[in-house]
Amino acid sequence: MGKGYHVAIVGATGAVGIELLRVMERREFPVASLRLLASPKSVGRSLRFRAQEIAVEALDENSFAGTGLAFFSAGSNIAREFAPRAQKAGVVVVDNSSAFRMDEAVPLVIPEVNPDDVRAHRGLIANPNCTTAVALMALFPLHRAFGLQRVFAASYQAVSGSGSRAIEELRNQIDAASNGREIRAEVYPHQIAFNALPHVDSFLATGYTREEMKLQNEGRKMMHLPEFRASVTCVRIPVYRAHSVAISAEFARPVSIDAARDVLAKAPGLDLVDEPTANRYPTPLECAGKDNCQVGRLRIDSALENGLSLWVSGDQLLKGAALNAVQIAELL
Amino acid sequence: MGKGYHVAIVGATGAVGIELLRVMERREFPVASLRLLASPKSVGRSLRFRAQEIAVEALDENSFAGTGLAFFSAGSNIAREFAPRAQKAGVVVVDNSSAFRMDEAVPLVIPEVNPDDVRAHRGLIANPNCTTAVALMALFPLHRAFGLQRVFAASYQAVSGSGSRAIEELRNQIDAASNGREIRAEVYPHQIAFNALPHVDSFLATGYTREEMKLQNEGRKMMHLPEFRASVTCVRIPVYRAHSVAISAEFARPVSIDAARDVLAKAPGLDLVDEPTANRYPTPLECAGKDNCQVGRLRIDSALENGLSLWVSGDQLLKGAALNAVQIAELL
Repeated sequence: MGKGYHVAIVGATGAVGIELLRVMERREFPVASLRLLASPKSVGRSLRFRAQEIAVEALDENSFAGTGLAFFSAGSNIAREFAPRAQKAGVVVVDNSSAFRMDEAVPLVIPEVNPDDVRAHRGLIANPNCTTAVALMALFPLHRAFGLQRVFAASYQAVSGSGSRAIEELRNQIDAASNGREIRAEVYPHQIAFNALPHVDSFLATGYTREEMKLQNEGRKMMHLPEFRASVTCVRIPVYRAHSVAISAEFARPVSIDAARDVLAKAPGLDLVDEPTANRYPTPLECAGKDNCQVGRLRIDSALENGLSLWVSGDQLLKGAALNAVQIAELL
Repeated sequence: MGKGYHVAIVGATGAVGIELLRVMERREFPVASLRLLASPKSVGRSLRFRAQEIAVEALDENSFAGTGLAFFSAGSNIAREFAPRAQKAGVVVVDNSSAFRMDEAVPLVIPEVNPDDVRAHRGLIANPNCTTAVALMALFPLHRAFGLQRVFAASYQAVSGSGSRAIEELRNQIDAASNGREIRAEVYPHQIAFNALPHVDSFLATGYTREEMKLQNEGRKMMHLPEFRASVTCVRIPVYRAHSVAISAEFARPVSIDAARDVLAKAPGLDLVDEPTANRYPTPLECAGKDNCQVGRLRIDSALENGLSLWVSGDQLLKGAALNAVQIAELL
């Protein structure tokens, strides 16, 4: 395939795996060879990369021979089992799961936020939570300008964040509803079609979900901001692709709309879409398939002193996962 | 029809009008006679009430002769034009629009919050905004226990809040998407199927929408709490019926989960549904068609001092509109 890395993708047939292939093509990521790894049930399938059909192989302990760079997008259990093995075999791993994100020895990186942190890696770099990544694309530039202290946020998360089976589940439920058939819920505990579920990831003893703590925990680590506080409600809604977040953010210093606009308009990887009276604001549908996140609905927060309200949307399979992973690899 | 009021419904064929008929039946509201009023294009239709077909009549200046009580659910313009005329004719009007809610001479009432305010009416009582009503069903009992100061909230609003045409629009868009036909948006400025629109009601110069200010403005009036502050993002999602609100609420006095649970479990018109590890929490689908609102996902707020995070769902056509209007009439 030319000069470049010997790349492996673990979880190649999943929603994020497929996007990784497209992102590497689009960004002309230097790939010398490519192995597609997945669970045994995907063996026999093949996926297209740069006009070549590549057979999917079963992941096992010998999968990483000759590999230089591995993207993991197969969940925490697979990551915990196979990432350290790959690491020992000299492979640099970029992991999309939550398994190692809060590990002090593992850099957690958004290239637009903390690119320098990647340097300290010991063969393993973590990709942040998708909702966190989308939110920080707007919050971090505002932090640099005004000093971020805390946020109150509510998410509107797409089913693709739960993987390919969840996309199918929404499609099947819509179809069943249209045709008067019984609606079955298997991926989610309740019907997701025409519904909203305040339940993403598992519940902690505090009543928050794990997902709801990621903006605070991962945000502190990536922004180097140990005092940062975030109270979040994460909600799954019947959208196929792209997450959105409604945010009230409090800053140390006074904020003006003009100054915030200026900061956000210049922020990398982010588009300011904020002409509400012309019906222009971010929507998940508009962000689906786009690399850049979008921010809009800016207003001086009515219940905070130095506060700003905003609305961010972004394709969580791209900036929240595949794109960010490839950007991390590009930093190396 | 028996003893009781001579009732008129203005906007009888709309989403709220239809619910008014069902609520009056269910609650055995004393109706001596019933006139169904709507725009001329609905004339020729008839609606069923207590096993009787009642013809829809066109609303005009003579519509209120002999009427004692009128429910208005036809928007602000119709309310501004016809409610004062009805009032002058001696009719008691319960208006569901936003036209008179902030008028000091007009009581704005949720029977579970400020029933006594209804006494000061001069023939016109306003029904609150639907999202505000659903949120206050949980916030007001908490206020009485702990002293509410401010909230940060994000809404998840059903299309039925925009009326019957919006319900049709979502249905048509879903159908078009399933059959590969072009998706048309007429009621909303963008596709609502598989999307989320941070746009409910019109935009103010501050960047907030009118809808987003209602929780603060109407909340202050109904809770008699002039210092109450609320920063809200209102979002339309592809749900047919029942609104939800994610809330971070700050109180004057310390809050505990046990004390909050106790208060909410006893609150009238509200069901506490809060066993998250058993997948029990409010969802709009579960609340659709139910008189009671539901509250759950209680947790000590991670970014406030005396704070509580919660999630409330409620059928906005019922508690947010028809049910509350009939409850107001029952107070009279």
